[in-house]
Parts: sequence; structure tokens; C-alpha cells
Amino acid sequence: MKFAATLALAAAAFTLAAPASAQFAKPEDAVKYRQSSMFVLGQHFGRIGAMANGRVPYDAQAAVANAEVVADMAKLPWPGFHVSTKDVTQTKAKGEIWAEQAKFREGADKMQAETQKLLAAAKTNNFDTLKAQFGQTAQTCKGCHDNYRNQ
Amino acid sequence: MKFAATLALAAAAFTLAAPASAQFAKPEDAVKYRQSSMFVLGQHFGRIGAMANGRVPYDAQAAVANAEVVADMAKLPWPGFHVSTKDVTQTKAKGEIWAEQAKFREGADKMQAETQKLLAAAKTNNFDTLKAQFGQTAQTCKGCHDNYRNQ
Repeated sequence: MKFAATLALAAAAFTLAAPASAQFAKPEDAVKYRQSSMFVLGQHFGRIGAMANGRVPYDAQAAVANAEVVADMAKLPWPGFHVSTKDVTQTKAKGEIWAEQAKFREGADKMQAETQKLLAAAKTNNFDTLKAQFGQTAQTCKGCHDNYRNQ
Repeated sequence: MKFAATLALAAAAFTLAAPASAQFAKPEDAVKYRQSSMFVLGQHFGRIGAMANGRVPYDAQAAVANAEVVADMAKLPWPGFHVSTKDVTQTKAKGEIWAEQAKFREGADKMQAETQKLLAAAKTNNFDTLKAQFGQTAQTCKGCHDNYRNQ
């Protein structure tokens, strides 16, 4: 049982580790990559938020365009969260990420699912639907940020 | 003639200016946005380059996946090149960008067209086609970097 669990963990670690070490020239690039993709995501997510919260007028077409970028960007950051980056100091990432890999990856998957739902909500062209799903998606962001990102 | 040209320039400036000032909370965000999207683009473009230049084995599926991100990212940086950012110091962008808007935008359009061709080339699953188009696309990147980016 314990051996099987160790094997499964090792397999998971390999799956996560192999592409990332091949993909980035150095750990600092992996950090910059995840920060960059998160920043771009955040800018477009914020524009939907500004509509959802009434700070700017609702524009159905802009909402869809922004939600498309959000959904695309949501796929990207994860290889950047590679254990080889744990000693990089220019990051708000908490050490808990490396200790709670399964939970962290679950959060990453949930966030991607929620951004797909946000895109679907934007495409309904219904403001209330968009607003409700924006709240759901934002909660998912916040959940991981609370656990895994320093303020 | 001169008046018409001035009008055309003013119209172009308005088109470029209006969305950007609405989109970014401050000029530094616009700079960070364009830098972030360019960095993500560069990482994925570099992975195709590594194949094209024989540093890593050709993987047709990975080439398409990377080319998709490159083509998506190529659409993003441009609103970040807004004249309101001309006094931001944390950037390699040259002042020529603001003086040569038409030429700069032409380069931006060409780059986006070349990244679409790169995606099409990747989808042929033919290494030589990919390699040739990688070279073309890289030349387009270089053209603008030579003119508009400090080393």
C-alpha cells in the first residue's frame, strides 16, 4: 500500500518534473514565465471584473474576448511551478506548494475549469450569468492565493 | 495634403489610444503587460527554435502546441505599446516607437501574420516546412527588435 503510494507519487513527480526541466533554461525563467502568464491573465480577468462590479459598462463582445484570453492563459502557468524553482527568491510563491503538490494541482485544475465556465458564461451574452460566474471564478483564484501566495 | 496627413495621424492615434488608456490602470501596467506577453511568447517560440535548430528532437505535436501559444500571444502586446508609457523607465522600448507609429504597427501586423504562418507550418507535421517558417518568423521578430528595442 505504502509502496504503491510512493510509486504513484514518484510517477506524478516525474510527469510534472520532466517537461519543466526541459522547458526552461533556468529556474528564474520558470518563475518569470508563471508570473508573466498570471499577470496577463489577471489583466484580462480584471477587465471582466470591472464590468461585473459595475465600474465600466457591460460590453458583451469585450467580455467574450477577455474571457477567451483568460481561458487560454489559465492553461499556461503550471509547468512554471516546478520544484527546481523553490530557492528562487523573487517570488510570492509559498513553500507549501512543494509540500502539497496534489492539493496545489487540484487547485490549478479547478481554476482552469472555472475559466472555461467563465468563457461559456460570457458567451451567453447575459450580464447576470457572467457576473455570477465571475464571482465563482474569483473565489477559485482567491482560494489558491490565500493558501499558496504571500501577500 | 499636410492637413489630411495630420488628420489621418490623429485618427490613428485616437484608435490606438482610446482602448489602452481604458485597459490599463497605469502606464507601468501597460509596460508589464507587453513585457509579460512577449516573454511568454518568447519561451514558446524558443522551444520551436530549439527543434528547428536541432538542439532538441523534432516533436510535431509539441511544435503545434507551442505554435498555438505563439500565435495567441502575438495578438496581445500591442495595446501595451501606448504613448502614455513613453516615460516609463523600466523598458527596453526605444523612443522611435512613438515617432514611427505607422511603421511600428506595420511590424506588429507582420509579426502576427508570420506567427499564423508558423502555426500552419507546424500543422503540416513536416520538419523542413517548420524550420523554414521558423526562420522567416524569427527574421520578423529581429526586424522590429533591431529598430525598436534597446539591447
